[in-house]
Amino acid sequence: MLHTYETDGAKIYKESFATIRSEADLARFNKDEESVVVRMIHAAGMVGLEEHVRFTPGMAEIARAALANGAPILCDAYMVSEGVTRPRMPADNEVICTLRDPKVPEMAKEMGNTRSAAAVELWRPKLEGALVAIGNAPTALFHLLNILQDPNCPRPAAIIGCPVGFVGAMESKDALMQDPPVPSMIVKGRLGGSAITVAAINALASWKE
Amino acid sequence: MLHTYETDGAKIYKESFATIRSEADLARFNKDEESVVVRMIHAAGMVGLEEHVRFTPGMAEIARAALANGAPILCDAYMVSEGVTRPRMPADNEVICTLRDPKVPEMAKEMGNTRSAAAVELWRPKLEGALVAIGNAPTALFHLLNILQDPNCPRPAAIIGCPVGFVGAMESKDALMQDPPVPSMIVKGRLGGSAITVAAINALASWKE
Repeated sequence: MLHTYETDGAKIYKESFATIRSEADLARFNKDEESVVVRMIHAAGMVGLEEHVRFTPGMAEIARAALANGAPILCDAYMVSEGVTRPRMPADNEVICTLRDPKVPEMAKEMGNTRSAAAVELWRPKLEGALVAIGNAPTALFHLLNILQDPNCPRPAAIIGCPVGFVGAMESKDALMQDPPVPSMIVKGRLGGSAITVAAINALASWKE
Repeated sequence: MLHTYETDGAKIYKESFATIRSEADLARFNKDEESVVVRMIHAAGMVGLEEHVRFTPGMAEIARAALANGAPILCDAYMVSEGVTRPRMPADNEVICTLRDPKVPEMAKEMGNTRSAAAVELWRPKLEGALVAIGNAPTALFHLLNILQDPNCPRPAAIIGCPVGFVGAMESKDALMQDPPVPSMIVKGRLGGSAITVAAINALASWKE
């Protein structure tokens, strides 16, 4: 017997978001933040994720405005840049991942760092006013924080800091939030990753659910 | 003061996997399965994920052999296909996502189903002996299960069933495991997603950690 299931994409979204709002504890978020957190929970399939999400004041509004004004989106991984839903972008925003640039392997060797960190160096020409989305590599976030200590380094509009894992993820996100160089958000601890990061970008790009 | 952090990618992996093995309860998995589960935990940043992972007997060995023999990998989302680490593939395996095929929107309308389900229809010429990796859409998994009820439909070698979310994800994975048409693995319940799915593919492709 054939399986029967909900096949209407719009209904699936609507029911999913209603379930999340009925189960998750979203009271501490403002409206701009709430729409981001709901989408992150949706991407992770995980009510409870909200406990670990932190925004600096005004980050969601600032990131939303930056995207509306055409900010490029700088991603640390192709799983992030590929996940961005282009029709949701308010200004046909450029989505950039520099990880496969042919210069990266040699730069990483010279820097004594990962390819993810080296790829961040190639963000500089686009960094001013950009939305940065780090959904994979703690070393990318740490390297970004280090280059932003130079006051001559261009400033992004906002940072989504969601690297994932067991070495450096928690530490890099704590470092971001202890002294945020620009408005920022994180998922505290080990949790993070490309799906959650993409969800945050897509939510900041459009109110459409 | 600049942040100091581990910048050696190989050391980061080694320490991450050691942490996972010291914290996670992996006793019920055989060697082929264990390497997959460890990598999935790594991608999710989540010890405890292992409780939700199920393999049909021999799935990991069969999927590994299929990849070694050149099986293509059929993915339901670009976040999955983009995440596959090409140098890990044992036979330069083809990685396919049909979601952006220009025929998909019209097919979805005709089928009265999602684009993810319609894209599965386009897998048929490559389905025989393939590794299927569903990391996003429950409708893709349900549609695959339905077409596999036709004995004339080509059979994949194995299915990674990790759709994520609040509507249909749990149900589609339960349906897969209640009557697996081919060797399969799932993450039970709402959890799943592209990062976890990619981790499973990458682990099945190579023993390298």
